[in-house]
Amino acid sequence: MSNRDRLAAAGLTLPPVPAPAAAYVPAIRHGDLVVVSGQLPLRDGVLLATGLVGTDVTQDDAAELARVCALNALAAAASVAGGLDAIASVLRVGVFVAGADGFAAQHLVANGASQLFGDVLGPDAVHARAAVGVARLPLDAPVEVEAMMAVVAGA
Amino acid sequence: MSNRDRLAAAGLTLPPVPAPAAAYVPAIRHGDLVVVSGQLPLRDGVLLATGLVGTDVTQDDAAELARVCALNALAAAASVAGGLDAIASVLRVGVFVAGADGFAAQHLVANGASQLFGDVLGPDAVHARAAVGVARLPLDAPVEVEAMMAVVAGA
Amino acid sequence: MSNRDRLAAAGLTLPPVPAPAAAYVPAIRHGDLVVVSGQLPLRDGVLLATGLVGTDVTQDDAAELARVCALNALAAAASVAGGLDAIASVLRVGVFVAGADGFAAQHLVANGASQLFGDVLGPDAVHARAAVGVARLPLDAPVEVEAMMAVVAGA
Repeated sequence: MSNRDRLAAAGLTLPPVPAPAAAYVPAIRHGDLVVVSGQLPLRDGVLLATGLVGTDVTQDDAAELARVCALNALAAAASVAGGLDAIASVLRVGVFVAGADGFAAQHLVANGASQLFGDVLGPDAVHARAAVGVARLPLDAPVEVEAMMAVVAGA
Repeated sequence: MSNRDRLAAAGLTLPPVPAPAAAYVPAIRHGDLVVVSGQLPLRDGVLLATGLVGTDVTQDDAAELARVCALNALAAAASVAGGLDAIASVLRVGVFVAGADGFAAQHLVANGASQLFGDVLGPDAVHARAAVGVARLPLDAPVEVEAMMAVVAGA
Repeated sequence: MSNRDRLAAAGLTLPPVPAPAAAYVPAIRHGDLVVVSGQLPLRDGVLLATGLVGTDVTQDDAAELARVCALNALAAAASVAGGLDAIASVLRVGVFVAGADGFAAQHLVANGASQLFGDVLGPDAVHARAAVGVARLPLDAPVEVEAMMAVVAGA
């Protein structure tokens, strides 16, 4: 089953690659590695939520936002890898969660991103991950997801 | 002197690979690179401390916790590299410290991790590092350590 | 135009490689990759500012500090790559901003680093980036910049 098939089976479509908020690119390829910039929960150019997880945003909603970040990350990776099916695997995912005082379930928020990668890339999405709670994020986004992926041989 | 010899000389044993707190894997290998997930100071499945460095946990104790994280990282890396002696070097270490308001000695906490890598891997443990102070960490852990390592040629 | 030419054209000189604040190295090379440790805004061994962006340090000043961090990162990378002209490209930049409560323009601070890389490395400086707001940084620095770069073939 191809990544594109899994994307469709999950009822998802790959969004346009979000424009970076500043002076960098959404993703870059080097050899068979793809490094994806920190993605915010933007859809159609609109930030879906702002503020801190635990007060302004619920943990469950934050996990959904992490899914959106991850989908944006896939779009960014596909744009430099030669398409979604050229993404072979995910090596590392970094999840930053802007949490209210005392919020300590960053790993559960981050699962939203991890599961989206699994939904689209299948078993090859299995990755190493670091999830941490930060003070604030750009544009007051509650979640940011960055990633390092690998492309298929020959792509 | 092998990594296993140094481990024993330091009076350490490699723990079982800690189960991830969520939907990811402890470590993944790609080519000769190993990416290790953010490790918490867990021993036998128990988090050794919680809270913020500077109030709930002393700086010295936090450095000890960082050692535990680093040992867990070695266990995770060894599990995908083909054993401890297959780890050739450490490229990058990321240390996240959940500190009390104003705590700014993340680098000294992080030294616990750096030194553990040196104790076990010897001179080849010398690595690049980023140490930062975060708001909170998963499960309210005071310290989290992630790493990227390289495996020996042919391993 | 070489990197050294661009450095001079920008009116910059590469500083001595800053000594790490603790038990690690400023940069390490593996194959054609260079991993650079988190760099603080040090000049001649002196931290140029301390405290939080938004109260103790203005956003514009913080962007200037991010430039200093990035210049230090280039110095560190050049020291293991075989000189500044041996740096082929920048793959990933991580920018950590210690911000006052509610500060959410980490991406604009981070632009200081991204632009410095562009000033010196030209179009090949284009990189993926993650910018986040942390609680505090080592030595109470307002900004820290880490990076992963690639060296030119044969260097």
